[in-house]
Amino acid sequence: MSDRISHQGLRGKVMSADDAAQLIKPGDQIGFSGFTGAGYPKEMPGAIARRITEATERGEEFRINVLTGASTAPELDGVLAETGGVNWRAPYQSDPTLRGKINDGTTYYSDIHLSHSGQMTTQGFFGPVDVAIVEAVRIKEDGSIVPSSSVGNSVNYLQAAERIIIEVNEWQSAELEGMHDIWLPGLPPARQIIPIEESGQRIGKAAIDIDPAKVVAVVETNAPDRNSPFKPLDEDSKRIAGHLIDFFEHEVAQGRLPENLLPLQSGVGNIANAVLAGLLDSKFENLTSYTEVIQDGMIELLDNGTMSVASATSFALSPDAADRMNEKASDYAKKIILRPQEVSNHAEVIRRLGVISCNGLIEADIYGNVNSTHIMGTKMMNGLGGSGDFTRNAYISTFVSPSTAKGGDISAIVPMVSHVDHTEHDVMVIITEQGLADLRGLAPRQRAKVVIDKCAHPDYKEALTEYVERAEKQPKVGMHTPHDLREALGWHQRFLETGSMKA
Amino acid sequence: MSDRISHQGLRGKVMSADDAAQLIKPGDQIGFSGFTGAGYPKEMPGAIARRITEATERGEEFRINVLTGASTAPELDGVLAETGGVNWRAPYQSDPTLRGKINDGTTYYSDIHLSHSGQMTTQGFFGPVDVAIVEAVRIKEDGSIVPSSSVGNSVNYLQAAERIIIEVNEWQSAELEGMHDIWLPGLPPARQIIPIEESGQRIGKAAIDIDPAKVVAVVETNAPDRNSPFKPLDEDSKRIAGHLIDFFEHEVAQGRLPENLLPLQSGVGNIANAVLAGLLDSKFENLTSYTEVIQDGMIELLDNGTMSVASATSFALSPDAADRMNEKASDYAKKIILRPQEVSNHAEVIRRLGVISCNGLIEADIYGNVNSTHIMGTKMMNGLGGSGDFTRNAYISTFVSPSTAKGGDISAIVPMVSHVDHTEHDVMVIITEQGLADLRGLAPRQRAKVVIDKCAHPDYKEALTEYVERAEKQPKVGMHTPHDLREALGWHQRFLETGSMKA
Repeated sequence: MSDRISHQGLRGKVMSADDAAQLIKPGDQIGFSGFTGAGYPKEMPGAIARRITEATERGEEFRINVLTGASTAPELDGVLAETGGVNWRAPYQSDPTLRGKINDGTTYYSDIHLSHSGQMTTQGFFGPVDVAIVEAVRIKEDGSIVPSSSVGNSVNYLQAAERIIIEVNEWQSAELEGMHDIWLPGLPPARQIIPIEESGQRIGKAAIDIDPAKVVAVVETNAPDRNSPFKPLDEDSKRIAGHLIDFFEHEVAQGRLPENLLPLQSGVGNIANAVLAGLLDSKFENLTSYTEVIQDGMIELLDNGTMSVASATSFALSPDAADRMNEKASDYAKKIILRPQEVSNHAEVIRRLGVISCNGLIEADIYGNVNSTHIMGTKMMNGLGGSGDFTRNAYISTFVSPSTAKGGDISAIVPMVSHVDHTEHDVMVIITEQGLADLRGLAPRQRAKVVIDKCAHPDYKEALTEYVERAEKQPKVGMHTPHDLREALGWHQRFLETGSMKA
Repeated sequence: MSDRISHQGLRGKVMSADDAAQLIKPGDQIGFSGFTGAGYPKEMPGAIARRITEATERGEEFRINVLTGASTAPELDGVLAETGGVNWRAPYQSDPTLRGKINDGTTYYSDIHLSHSGQMTTQGFFGPVDVAIVEAVRIKEDGSIVPSSSVGNSVNYLQAAERIIIEVNEWQSAELEGMHDIWLPGLPPARQIIPIEESGQRIGKAAIDIDPAKVVAVVETNAPDRNSPFKPLDEDSKRIAGHLIDFFEHEVAQGRLPENLLPLQSGVGNIANAVLAGLLDSKFENLTSYTEVIQDGMIELLDNGTMSVASATSFALSPDAADRMNEKASDYAKKIILRPQEVSNHAEVIRRLGVISCNGLIEADIYGNVNSTHIMGTKMMNGLGGSGDFTRNAYISTFVSPSTAKGGDISAIVPMVSHVDHTEHDVMVIITEQGLADLRGLAPRQRAKVVIDKCAHPDYKEALTEYVERAEKQPKVGMHTPHDLREALGWHQRFLETGSMKA
């Protein structure tokens, strides 16, 4: 048995994943660890999926509700979704199989701000958490758990759950111990001030206290996180990064940002990674980050000293970077802090520190509303994630995207977005490879001019301008936000009918 | 001269409003005091309007940008809008004349979260503030200003402005001194923790420090606030209040709220006032409020002891209640605190205290998105106000509205809202006179069932249900948020064409 299980009583609970899965009941609501493919349990979900499939084959109803930190991996969301046994899922996912089940109506998906999901669970808004299944680096003598490559909502789920199952994963470096900062503000009326005044400040403990009496099983695993490689930087991503860095330089010159900027938040994905890579070659120094996920680009900034400290709740690394992290985790723990997502994404800290947010979008409209979640207004892509947590409390909120998708058949700039995740009141800057639209202080009609001029692809500029002109001539139109309601969603309908937004 | 001007140097700056208006230049950006018709300067706007009109008649261009706390009154927004000389306005208004200018394209309006507007001014996002024009109860010996019936953004504007004009209003009770709590968190990277842990906690000073050298004029006035009477409670408002109070009782019974609830925020208007009146007759005790505006209903709760303390940034009282306030201001100062709107509406405090928010809506859609600002997608009604500040950080967010408007020709529940101010991710509870929809933890299709069942007017229920059924059958539809994009905004278009949403 692994020497990573130091609590005597819990050593007696070690069993196989399939035996532990027998402790899961139909209808259970399960809180899993895991955030952006890091720190999720590797074997239990598969064992539960087998149990669901067997029950279904016997003609029994066996469905579960699944809570996590954020997205996981094929070994969690994928295998569970495959069974058709996921009744309800929150707060974020990015798995192709699960996405299919959400969009065909098999699975109900509640797309919740990541910083609110743990709090809402603790507040009892989703009903009881029956089981928490959490990956750990090790179990300490007192039963407390050292989390692995993410913290996510594990603390909330471990506190709320009736039963606990721990996966101790030998693949995760034991040196991650000390990187985590475990602290939650509690519930009102006694919710505490979050005393973080700098990204790098530690306020909590290195491990999660649990009640060992609630642990019903401990499973030993040795398996890597989902870690997938980033794509090589393409020209569009480099241009987007260039526009953003120019903007930063301009804001510093205008005295609206300090020379080392303010703490950066960077969404997940290739463009965000390109922005970080762009900062590597910029003149900026002593950067800090208060974000939710640490990607390769941020590790490089930490490695070369451009960034001094990064606070997050999870990693999302390439396999190579994950190997380096595992080798040098105790070194990185001096510059990296992993917090519960309720704290990494908390309005209070984000607004206090003045975080500069940078997130992707699916589409933006001419008036500055952003859709981050829905394809053509009805199909869920991934979810909101932490984009709302950061955007709505940011000192400066930015969104990045190529100006077209599907080989040019979709314009990322449309007359009216088909779903709104970030309102005109929260979106300050939109950037495409075409340019940067600074919307701060502008009224909707002023925004339309700037968005079309700076961000839209040349193939769509004329059509957008003509839309505005027609909208302004509609009978009974308000000139605050002119629209032709018959045509506002027409680009999306055309795409559904013809495969292109082009007329 | 008034004995309310105790600073010797500033006594020498006393002049008429018309003389002071000569100090305003074309193109000036002016930050006015004032919030929900309380504490705005009474004479300077009229004098500036006269100056604009005279210049315009001479053929000169004279336009200004107007910042305030929130809505003001005919004597400010009304007279300035009448001239056509308001180029740009932020962050909130409710004036009929100004609304007309916004919707006919004369005035650009930037509809900004109230808690962000002061901060964004200080951050320099709107350019320099040329003049601050602020109403005061008195000017103290050291030149500091005792604000009147609102605090709003006055501190930010006084700090940012190049020139300052003070209106000292004898109508406002001198006993208001001591009710205000002047404190701002500053700017990042040195922004401070807001140390408020209870609604009633005072953290600042009773007056606003200014640089007397920046004061170019002091004007003496004696005029009441806009105070308008509330309508008598109608049956719909009473039913809405009843549903909300039943919900509170249920949440307490389920252990999800303490017996004295959590601090209440209540939007402005008759329904919000009805909810407060409903609490007066309920079994709840020891209530507290952390809100932006104190209306008559809240004063009654404080008077009869049902509520122990109320924190806000402004009053919005009937003439009778305003008279009582002026008579007993020093008594009320023990239970009422007026803060800068950056603090009264701040994400950090709202989330820490666990505020229960209650705001009106123009329309909600079946999936839980809320439109608070736009009529038929294009015309600005008033603006977002503080609804976003509170909703997005609330412990429980609620929205209240009658289920129909315009004698039944408009349904407040529609297939898709024509503008989104509060996304599906932030709206927890919707209440009409028909009933209450608790949307917490529900996926969009689940929400549609509950919203139609509980909130829609019987005249529109069948049409909404049929819409969902048709939407679910659309080719290529995603079953996460089913829509027929050709029909989603069809109810609004029908209203524009026929005067009714009814088919």
